[in-house]
Amino acid sequence: MKDDLLHVDAMLTDLYQLTMAYAYWKSDKHEEEAVFDLFFRKCPFNGEFAIVAGIEQFLTFVENFGYNDEEIEVLKRLMPNADSGFWEWISKVDASQLRIMAMTEGSVVFARVPQIYVRGPLGVGQLLETTSLNLMNYPTLIATQAARLRMAAGENKTLIEMGLRRAQGPNGALSGALYSYIGGFDFTSNVKAFEVFGIPAKGTHAHSFVTAFTGLDEVADCQLKTRAIHYRQEMLRLFNLDGTNDGELAAFIAYALAYPDTFLALVDTYDTLKSGVPNFLVVSLALVEMGHKPFGIRLDSGDLAYLSKESRKMFWACYHHFIRSGIDLKKLMFPCNLAIAASNDINEKTLHALNAQGHEIDTFGIGTHNITCQAQPALGGVFKLVEINGKPRIKLSENREKVTIPGAKIAFRLYDDRNVPVVDVMCLENQDEDSLPKVGKPITCHHPYDPYKKMTVTPSRIEKLHMLVWDGKRLIPNWSPISAKIHCQTQLKNMRPDHLRHVNPTPYKVALSKELYDMMHDLWQKEVG
Amino acid sequence: MKDDLLHVDAMLTDLYQLTMAYAYWKSDKHEEEAVFDLFFRKCPFNGEFAIVAGIEQFLTFVENFGYNDEEIEVLKRLMPNADSGFWEWISKVDASQLRIMAMTEGSVVFARVPQIYVRGPLGVGQLLETTSLNLMNYPTLIATQAARLRMAAGENKTLIEMGLRRAQGPNGALSGALYSYIGGFDFTSNVKAFEVFGIPAKGTHAHSFVTAFTGLDEVADCQLKTRAIHYRQEMLRLFNLDGTNDGELAAFIAYALAYPDTFLALVDTYDTLKSGVPNFLVVSLALVEMGHKPFGIRLDSGDLAYLSKESRKMFWACYHHFIRSGIDLKKLMFPCNLAIAASNDINEKTLHALNAQGHEIDTFGIGTHNITCQAQPALGGVFKLVEINGKPRIKLSENREKVTIPGAKIAFRLYDDRNVPVVDVMCLENQDEDSLPKVGKPITCHHPYDPYKKMTVTPSRIEKLHMLVWDGKRLIPNWSPISAKIHCQTQLKNMRPDHLRHVNPTPYKVALSKELYDMMHDLWQKEVG
Repeated sequence: MKDDLLHVDAMLTDLYQLTMAYAYWKSDKHEEEAVFDLFFRKCPFNGEFAIVAGIEQFLTFVENFGYNDEEIEVLKRLMPNADSGFWEWISKVDASQLRIMAMTEGSVVFARVPQIYVRGPLGVGQLLETTSLNLMNYPTLIATQAARLRMAAGENKTLIEMGLRRAQGPNGALSGALYSYIGGFDFTSNVKAFEVFGIPAKGTHAHSFVTAFTGLDEVADCQLKTRAIHYRQEMLRLFNLDGTNDGELAAFIAYALAYPDTFLALVDTYDTLKSGVPNFLVVSLALVEMGHKPFGIRLDSGDLAYLSKESRKMFWACYHHFIRSGIDLKKLMFPCNLAIAASNDINEKTLHALNAQGHEIDTFGIGTHNITCQAQPALGGVFKLVEINGKPRIKLSENREKVTIPGAKIAFRLYDDRNVPVVDVMCLENQDEDSLPKVGKPITCHHPYDPYKKMTVTPSRIEKLHMLVWDGKRLIPNWSPISAKIHCQTQLKNMRPDHLRHVNPTPYKVALSKELYDMMHDLWQKEVG
Repeated sequence: MKDDLLHVDAMLTDLYQLTMAYAYWKSDKHEEEAVFDLFFRKCPFNGEFAIVAGIEQFLTFVENFGYNDEEIEVLKRLMPNADSGFWEWISKVDASQLRIMAMTEGSVVFARVPQIYVRGPLGVGQLLETTSLNLMNYPTLIATQAARLRMAAGENKTLIEMGLRRAQGPNGALSGALYSYIGGFDFTSNVKAFEVFGIPAKGTHAHSFVTAFTGLDEVADCQLKTRAIHYRQEMLRLFNLDGTNDGELAAFIAYALAYPDTFLALVDTYDTLKSGVPNFLVVSLALVEMGHKPFGIRLDSGDLAYLSKESRKMFWACYHHFIRSGIDLKKLMFPCNLAIAASNDINEKTLHALNAQGHEIDTFGIGTHNITCQAQPALGGVFKLVEINGKPRIKLSENREKVTIPGAKIAFRLYDDRNVPVVDVMCLENQDEDSLPKVGKPITCHHPYDPYKKMTVTPSRIEKLHMLVWDGKRLIPNWSPISAKIHCQTQLKNMRPDHLRHVNPTPYKVALSKELYDMMHDLWQKEVG
C-alpha cells in the first residue's frame, strides 16, 4: 500500500456515475460540453473558513483516469444489459479533453467558492464526481481542523498527530497525517506518512513499555542504574515520598539507555506525581551527570493542566535542591527546558480550556479527535453541474442555501488598502472584461441569495483564486507538503482574525458580480415557473 | 489500490512501537514471552453490544508481517542512533513465533472481552499494536453501527451504503462498505467494494443527470417519449397541475430508455410532488404499456416521511385512475410494488423518527452518517500487555474502568436453558480444568471491579469465545463477507432484545471467574502498595 493514496483509480466511484454515464451515452449526450463545480456550502466546525486540501491527489487521480480491460469486465458484471458501444467508449475515456481550474493547496477558502471546476464532456465529468469528492472532502476537513488546533494551541507549541490506531481505515490515517501537517501540525507518529510523504515523525513509548518491567533486576547493572538509584533516595526525601514504582524506574532506565539524549518518559502508568515524575527526575539527574540531556515527560491521563503545573513545580524544586549538589545543572539547561508533552482526548475545546487554566504543556499529542474530526466527521462538499452546452444550469431546493450558483465562473479575492482580504467575488467566466474587478475601481458585490444585501468595494489588490492546473495534461508541478503548509500559514496570517476566531467568528463575505447575480436570479425565476 | 486493504504493511504503525522495540532489544527483553489483549472498554453508540470485525484483514497483515530492506532504510533515517544489531533483528522479525486467539468475524462482543489476544516475543507483539488497532477499531465500529441501522430500519427494508464521497480517505470508504455489509447492509454504491470484496452494488442517477437536460427536444423522438407526453396531459388533470418540468421529464425518459426494467427516478430536483412524481408516473405508465417494469422513485430532500406517504398516495391515485384506461396495471403489478427509496442525512435517530411517523419508504440509502460513524467516529479499542514471562501485568488508572484485566485469559459465553446468552465469563488460561464453566454446574461469576457484584449461573450450553487462528501460520481459511454477515445476523437473533435496543439497553454481563478475580485484585493491591 506504499503509494495507494497516489494511485486511487477510477473504480473507486459510485455505481450511479456509471449508470448515469450509460444513460448519457444512450441519449448521445455524453460528449456535450459541461462544467462542474466542486465546493461546500458551509464551513466546518461552526467556523467561517476552511483550508483547501486534496488538489495534488486529485490531479494524480485525473492523470491516471480511465478504465482498463480488467476493470471493464468487472463493470460489465454490474451492468450486464449495457450496449457494447458503451464499453468501447468507456475503454477510451480519459482526462485528455478536460480543462480544470483549481485553487492552490493550502489556501483559505470559503463556502460556495469552488475549490475546483472542471470543463469537459458531460460523461467524463460525471465519472469524476465521487472520487474527486472523496479526494477533497476529508483532506479539506482535516486540514481545516489542524489549522484550528494550531490557532488554539498557539504558535510556539509543538503539535504531533497520532491518530493512526483510531483512524477510519488504513489510509484514512495516511491522508489524515498528511493533511494535518499541511494545516498546522509539526509531526506525525505515523511511520507510513514519513515513508510516503516525508512528514516528520516522532515517537516515544507506551504504557506497555512501563508495565513490561516488574523490578529493578530487569535492567542490567550499569552506571546509569546505580546513579539513578542513588538519586532516588534524595528525591524521596525531597518530595516526602515512601517510594516509587520499581518496574517504572527500571523501564525509564532501560529507555534512557536506548535514548540517552532524547529521553522522554510517559509518567502516568502508576501515579504521575508520586512515582512517574520522581522516577523521571532521578533518571534525568543521572543522565545529566553523565553528560547527556533528558528531553521531558509525557502525561496521558488525569487533569492535564494541574498535572503539568505540578510537574513543572517539581522540576524547579528538584533544580533548586540539586543545584547545590555539585552538578552544574544550570549549564546543562536542566530543568528549565525540560519538555512537558500531553495527550489524552485533546481537541480544540480542551486546548482553549487548558489555556484558560495556565497549563505548562509544550507539546500536544492529538490522536482520535483530530484524525476522525470528531467535532464534525464529514465535510459536505458537492460536485454540481453548473453549465451544459454553454447554458447555465441551476439546482433548486426548498432550502435556499442549497440552490447552486449556476454558470461557468471565475472568482477573485479583493483586498483592502491594508492588504487584507475583504470579499471573494464570483463573476461569469464570459462577462465583459470591463465589468470584472479592477484595482482602484469601485465594484458592487451582491449577496448570492438576498437581493437587499450588496456592498461596494474599491480593491487595492486583486487575487485570481483559480489557476488552470490541467488542460488535457498537467500544468503545475508536483508540490511538496511543506510548500502547501507554508502557503497555508501565510494565508491564515493575512486574514482578519475575527474571521478565524473560534467563538462567534465574523462571516467572510462571498459575493456575486451583478452579471452573475442577474443571470442566476433570472434562471431561478424561470425554473420556478 | 485494488487490494490495499489486503496488503497493509508493517510500516503503517506509530514510530513509538519501533523506538520501544529498540529499547526492549537494548535491554535484551525483546524475546521475553508476552501476552497482549486487544479489546475496548465501552460499547459504541451508547449501546451494550458491538460486532467483531476486522479479523480477516488483521490475519492477512499478520501473514505478511515484517520489514524488507527498503523499509529498514527508511526506519534507519528515523532512528539514526540505533545499533546495527537491532536492524539485524528487525530484518528477521515475522509472525512465526506468535500464537493468536481470536473471536469469529461477525460475532457479538461486549466491552472488556478481548476480540484478539496475541502470545509471543515482547518486541514482536509490541510491533503489532498500532496496525492491529487500526485494522480492528473502525471495522468493529462501523459493523456495529450497521447492525444498529438494520435493527432501526427493520428486517424487510433494503439498506444501501453510499458514503464513498464523504469517507475519511480513499479506503475508509472501501473498508466502510465491506464492514457495513457484514453488519447489516444489503448493498453498496461503491464499485471498488464490488471489485475487491464482491459486495453487491447498486446505483441510479444524481441531480446532475436531471439538470443536464433542459427540454424535451434533448431526447430523440421514440415511442416511450410519445407515450409519456401523452400520459402527461391526463396526469396534469388528475393532480390538478399546470405543468411539470420538461428537462426533468426528458431526463427520466432518457434514463428509462437506458434502464427500461429497473427505472428508478430521483424526483426532488425541482418539486417532488408537483413535478418529480408526476413525471416519474407518466414515464412508468409508458414503460408498463410497452411491457417493461418501472422500479420506483428516490427522495433525497425534504420531509421524507411526508413525501413518501404523499408519493404512495399519488401512486394509488394514478393506479385507480388509469386502471380504467385499458392497461392491465394490476397484472403488471403497478403501482403496488413500486419502490420508494430515500436518502439525505439518514442516521439511526432519523430511522426511529421515520418509523414513528409511519413512513412509506422501502429502501434507505445511507451515506455520510454511516461511513463516518457520525454519532461516534472512533472506537476506543486498545492493545494491552497483560502478561510477561508468565507473570500477569496490570495497568492501573485513577479511572477504575480503565484498569486492565491482567493475565492470559480464556473466555466463555454461558447460555441459559432457552439457549440465550446470559454472561460472558473470563477465566485464567491456566486455571484448573475443574474450575472452568461446565454445563449443568453452577459457577460464580464476579464483576471485574465491584466486589459486591457476583452471580451464580448454571449454564445449559457453553461457547468458547476464541479460537486459535494463528500458530506460526494461519489456521483458519479465508472467509467471505457473506459468511460473516450471516454469522452476525444469527448471533444478533440469539440475543435477548433488551441488550440490543436503542433506548436504555440492559447491560450484558461480562464477569470473571473467582480465580481471575482474586489474581487481579491481589495484583492491584500489590501495585497500589
